[in-house]
Amino acid sequence: MKATVSRKAHFNAAHRLYRKDWSDAKNLEVFGKCSNPNFHGHNYELIVSVTGKIDAETGYVIDIKILKEIIKAEVEDTFDHKNLNVEVQEFADLNPTTENIAVVIYNKIRPSLASHLDIEVTLFETPRNFVTYSGK
Amino acid sequence: MKATVSRKAHFNAAHRLYRKDWSDAKNLEVFGKCSNPNFHGHNYELIVSVTGKIDAETGYVIDIKILKEIIKAEVEDTFDHKNLNVEVQEFADLNPTTENIAVVIYNKIRPSLASHLDIEVTLFETPRNFVTYSGK
Amino acid sequence: MKATVSRKAHFNAAHRLYRKDWSDAKNLEVFGKCSNPNFHGHNYELIVSVTGKIDAETGYVIDIKILKEIIKAEVEDTFDHKNLNVEVQEFADLNPTTENIAVVIYNKIRPSLASHLDIEVTLFETPRNFVTYSGK
Amino acid sequence: MKATVSRKAHFNAAHRLYRKDWSDAKNLEVFGKCSNPNFHGHNYELIVSVTGKIDAETGYVIDIKILKEIIKAEVEDTFDHKNLNVEVQEFADLNPTTENIAVVIYNKIRPSLASHLDIEVTLFETPRNFVTYSGK
Amino acid sequence: MKATVSRKAHFNAAHRLYRKDWSDAKNLEVFGKCSNPNFHGHNYELIVSVTGKIDAETGYVIDIKILKEIIKAEVEDTFDHKNLNVEVQEFADLNPTTENIAVVIYNKIRPSLASHLDIEVTLFETPRNFVTYSGK
Amino acid sequence: MKATVSRKAHFNAAHRLYRKDWSDAKNLEVFGKCSNPNFHGHNYELIVSVTGKIDAETGYVIDIKILKEIIKAEVEDTFDHKNLNVEVQEFADLNPTTENIAVVIYNKIRPSLASHLDIEVTLFETPRNFVTYSGK
Repeated sequence: MKATVSRKAHFNAAHRLYRKDWSDAKNLEVFGKCSNPNFHGHNYELIVSVTGKIDAETGYVIDIKILKEIIKAEVEDTFDHKNLNVEVQEFADLNPTTENIAVVIYNKIRPSLASHLDIEVTLFETPRNFVTYSGK
Repeated sequence: MKATVSRKAHFNAAHRLYRKDWSDAKNLEVFGKCSNPNFHGHNYELIVSVTGKIDAETGYVIDIKILKEIIKAEVEDTFDHKNLNVEVQEFADLNPTTENIAVVIYNKIRPSLASHLDIEVTLFETPRNFVTYSGK
Repeated sequence: MKATVSRKAHFNAAHRLYRKDWSDAKNLEVFGKCSNPNFHGHNYELIVSVTGKIDAETGYVIDIKILKEIIKAEVEDTFDHKNLNVEVQEFADLNPTTENIAVVIYNKIRPSLASHLDIEVTLFETPRNFVTYSGK
Repeated sequence: MKATVSRKAHFNAAHRLYRKDWSDAKNLEVFGKCSNPNFHGHNYELIVSVTGKIDAETGYVIDIKILKEIIKAEVEDTFDHKNLNVEVQEFADLNPTTENIAVVIYNKIRPSLASHLDIEVTLFETPRNFVTYSGK
Repeated sequence: MKATVSRKAHFNAAHRLYRKDWSDAKNLEVFGKCSNPNFHGHNYELIVSVTGKIDAETGYVIDIKILKEIIKAEVEDTFDHKNLNVEVQEFADLNPTTENIAVVIYNKIRPSLASHLDIEVTLFETPRNFVTYSGK
Repeated sequence: MKATVSRKAHFNAAHRLYRKDWSDAKNLEVFGKCSNPNFHGHNYELIVSVTGKIDAETGYVIDIKILKEIIKAEVEDTFDHKNLNVEVQEFADLNPTTENIAVVIYNKIRPSLASHLDIEVTLFETPRNFVTYSGK
C-alpha cells in the first residue's frame, strides 16, 4: 500500500524578480512591481509531500519528524529571514520566481530522501498564488 | 522542467439546482433544499491550475498576472454578484451543480491559454464541498 | 471568573440590498451590484459569543451544545438555503445588509439566553467583510 | 466528462502510537512523545474525494448529501470522541498512524460507493501533517 | 500609545470532561460523549494577547520572541502530547473544560509578564468552539 | 444601534527591524534575525474595523466599498510590493515593528473617516504574530 505524507512549513523572505543580464527597464516591463529594486517580501508556505509504501512494522511512509528536520535543515535554516537574491547562493544567477524557488527546494530536499520515494513540493508565495513541482 | 501554477479567485452568486423539464416536486425530491425556487447563494472559491514547462528566460510557466486577468474576464466579470440560473447564459439549460459550473469555467478559460498548457479547475461551493475538473 | 464562550456556525443564502420605497435606479446608485434584482448569495459564517461567569460545578459558562442548538433553531433552520429578502420575515421591510442581519440574529438569539449573559454576534458575509453587534 | 467531488468532515479522537509486541522503551524510542501511554489527541480533518462521470441528467458525480451520510455512518459515528486504540476495533492490532487511519477509512468507505468510482482519502492529523491514500 | 500584541501557539492533548465526585452516569448525563472514560482529544489552538504601551525605543509592546518562549515553557512543554486529566497537575481536581483550561493557561502565564501588561487568552478546542479569558 | 464593520486587506512588503542610531551589533542583539541588513519580508494581512451607528436608511455603518477604497489609497498603494524602510516615508526614522506599522496605518486612515466613527487596526505580520491598535 502506497500513501503520500505531507508536511507544511514556512519561511519569511525578501526577493525581487529580475535578470542581471536585463536592464532595469526590461525587468520592470516583464516583471512589473515584482521587480522593485528595493525588494519586497512574502510569508512563504511550503508543503513537501512524500509518496511511498507504508512500512508494515511502523505504519509510516516516513517518520514525519525526520521530514520536518530535513525541511528545517535544507530550507528554513537557509531561506528564513533572508534576502533570496542576495543571500541564497542558488539564486545568484537564477530569477527567484515561485516556480524556480520550488525547483530549488525540490533539488535541495531530494538527496536527503530515499530514491524509492516520490517527492512533490508546493510553494505558496501568497494565499492566492502557488506552484507545485515534482521533479518532472 | 514542468510545474503547475495555481491562482485562487472568488465570486458570490445566487443559484438553485433544478431542471426545467422536471416538475417542482421532482426537483425537490432530487435536489432537496438546493432546489428552493427563491434561490440561495454561495461565496464560490475558485482555483485555476496551469501546468507546463518553466520558461528558462523568465522562470515562469505563465505570468500569473495574465492568469489573474483571464479569470477576471472570463469568470468574475460574468459570474460575480449574479444569479447563475437567470443571468449566465451557459446555465440557461444546464443545472448549475458545482460539477457543471466547474466544467463551464474550464470551457470558458481553455481557449485563452496556449494549447500546450494543461488546465485544472477546482471550485469550492462551500469550505466543505468542492469539485475538480480537468477537461477529461 | 468571567469568560466568553464562542460558537461558529454557517448558512448559505441569497439576498439583494434594496429598499422597496426607492426606485431601482436609486437602489443601484446606492448599493451598486449588491442590488442586483435577480439576487446573489453568500456562505455566511456566524460567531455567537456568550460572556458570563464560569459555573464552579460544571466548568461551563454555557453548555456549548445548548448554544449550538439555539443557533440551529433560531438562525440555521430559518436562514439556510433561503432567500433572505423573500423568505425571512424579518427582512420583509428591512434591507439585509450584514449590519442588519447581525442585529436580527442578535434579537432572535437574545431571548433564549439568560439575561445575565452578554451576547455578541459576528457575521462574515465574505472572508473579507464582517460585522460585529452586541446589542448596544 | 469526469470530475472529482470532495467532501470535508472531521472528528476528534485520542490515540497513541505503539505496537503491543514492542516494549514501552522501544515504542518510545521509535514513536517519541506520540507513544505517551496516557494518550494524546487530535481534531482530525478528513477529505473524501470521489472521481467519476458527471451524470448528464442530474449534473452530479455523486449526490454530496449521500457522500456526507456515508462519511457520517462509516467514520464519524465510530471515530468521533473515541479513543482509537481502545475503542475502534480496526486498531486493536494496528498502530493508528495517520497513514493507517487513512487506509482504514478508505476500506470502510469503499464498499458503500459504486465500484466505477475512484476514491481518495486525505486525513489531516494537524494542520501541518496530513496523509493521502487512494487504495493503491 | 497602547497596542495589543498577539501570538498563536498550539498543542495536542487528550482529555475527558468529568468530575471525580460524580458517578459515571451523572458525568455522561451532563457532559455527554465528552465524558468518554477512554478519553478523546484535540488540536488546541491558543492565542495569547498582551496589551501595553509601545516602547518608544524598540517599537515593541513586548518582544514576541519572549512571549513565544513563555508560552512554550508554561503551556506547550507541559500540555503538548499529554493527557490533561492524568498528567497535568492543575486538572487533578479540575474539570478540563475549555473555560477551565483557558483560566489555567492565564494563571500559568500571568506571573511571567510584567504586571502593567494586560493579558488575554483565547483557546480554540475546535475551529468552531473557543473561549476567551482575561483574568476578570 | 452601534455595530462594527471590518474589512480585510493585504500587502506584501520587505522590511528589517533596526534603528539608525544603533550599531549593527546592537540592532542584531535586540532584534535578532529580524535586523538582517539585506531585509526579509512578509504577506501582511490587515483588518480595519469601524464602529458607529447603523444608518437607519441604508442599513450601513459605512459603505464597505468606501472603506475598501480608503484602505487601497492609504495603505495598499503605498505599502504593497515596497521596502518599508527604504520607500515608505513614515519609516524613514521609525522602526517598522508590527506595532509601529499598525500605528502608521491607523494615522493614515483616521483622517479619511468621520470623527464620530471609532477605528481599530489589526495587522498580521505572520499568521501567528499580530498587533491591534485603536488610537489610544
